[in-house]
Amino acid sequence: MSSPSLDELITALKCLPGVGQKSAQRMAMHLLERDRQGASCLASAMTAALETVRHCRQCRNFSDADICDICAQDTRDQSILCVVETPADVLAIESSAAFQGRYFVLLGRLSPLDGYGPQQLGLDDLEQQLKQTRIKEIILATSATVEGDITARFVADIAAKYEVSSTRLARGIPAGGELEFVDSVTLSKALSGRQQFE
Amino acid sequence: MSSPSLDELITALKCLPGVGQKSAQRMAMHLLERDRQGASCLASAMTAALETVRHCRQCRNFSDADICDICAQDTRDQSILCVVETPADVLAIESSAAFQGRYFVLLGRLSPLDGYGPQQLGLDDLEQQLKQTRIKEIILATSATVEGDITARFVADIAAKYEVSSTRLARGIPAGGELEFVDSVTLSKALSGRQQFE
Repeated sequence: MSSPSLDELITALKCLPGVGQKSAQRMAMHLLERDRQGASCLASAMTAALETVRHCRQCRNFSDADICDICAQDTRDQSILCVVETPADVLAIESSAAFQGRYFVLLGRLSPLDGYGPQQLGLDDLEQQLKQTRIKEIILATSATVEGDITARFVADIAAKYEVSSTRLARGIPAGGELEFVDSVTLSKALSGRQQFE
Repeated sequence: MSSPSLDELITALKCLPGVGQKSAQRMAMHLLERDRQGASCLASAMTAALETVRHCRQCRNFSDADICDICAQDTRDQSILCVVETPADVLAIESSAAFQGRYFVLLGRLSPLDGYGPQQLGLDDLEQQLKQTRIKEIILATSATVEGDITARFVADIAAKYEVSSTRLARGIPAGGELEFVDSVTLSKALSGRQQFE
């Protein structure tokens, strides 16, 4: 290519998830040809975010302040703690508007081979919170995978030490799901977890 | 969301082509969680590109210098000019390594309703080059669409004024194309443009 800065931009864009050489080229061309203002906003938003965004001291979610907005809200139920893997999971649950308690973000899942042990997941912090505050229930909202289940089991064991009850998100048919296209594991979970029809 | 800078980053990422709310969220989370160094490189590469990248005075392709690398090469055949719509098209043709002449980038295609007239496409510049330099052939490599054809016709008319011959890229079955899945317009072009089998 005839422009080294353009080459560098294309290479740098490839750090975005799901963006390869072709998409990076298209993005760079688009920004330089049609949206230089957007590109300039993006560059400064990125620099600002890198400087400002850190983790909430209490729940480990992303936050600009020492304590995030959710933890700072008085109206939130302090007795229920929802344990999730990533900040994106908090967003997803918040958008369902079905939960009014607090969160605890593990920022990963137990996976010793990848270097994710109890310490990386902040389980010491979690234990401190269980000791010091009046949490009655922990909702284990880790993902429905083997690692997610193992992580949930580990957190449940810690909760049991402090006589806090643990619940796990229900497994079953997703909204709009047609039985024909649902996999067998999900179906078996949906059957074993069936509920009284009211 | 509990972090305004994160919100701003997500909004800013949506200026990238093909990136909506969900992808922007995923990108922002990924950068902040796992690739802060990549994000910082990206922000500075973007700022650098916005400052440095402009258009080559001769061919209108992206360039860091006044005259781009391709135009500056002595080994290029000065008598053939390939007219393309965008800098991405130059990249595509260069990667085929099948062309050794120079380029002229229109930075758009004729579309008066969208405000793309002959002036926006730099056709005055092109005419000047036809007048002043010894161009023997213009390859019309605009896209194989109605607008691309109209643009090609317009450029060919200008070339004719200076007795420069115009050629158009061949239309036909793409490499690896199975006849069964080729559309009828392409098939009819491939038939009418059939060539002696050697």
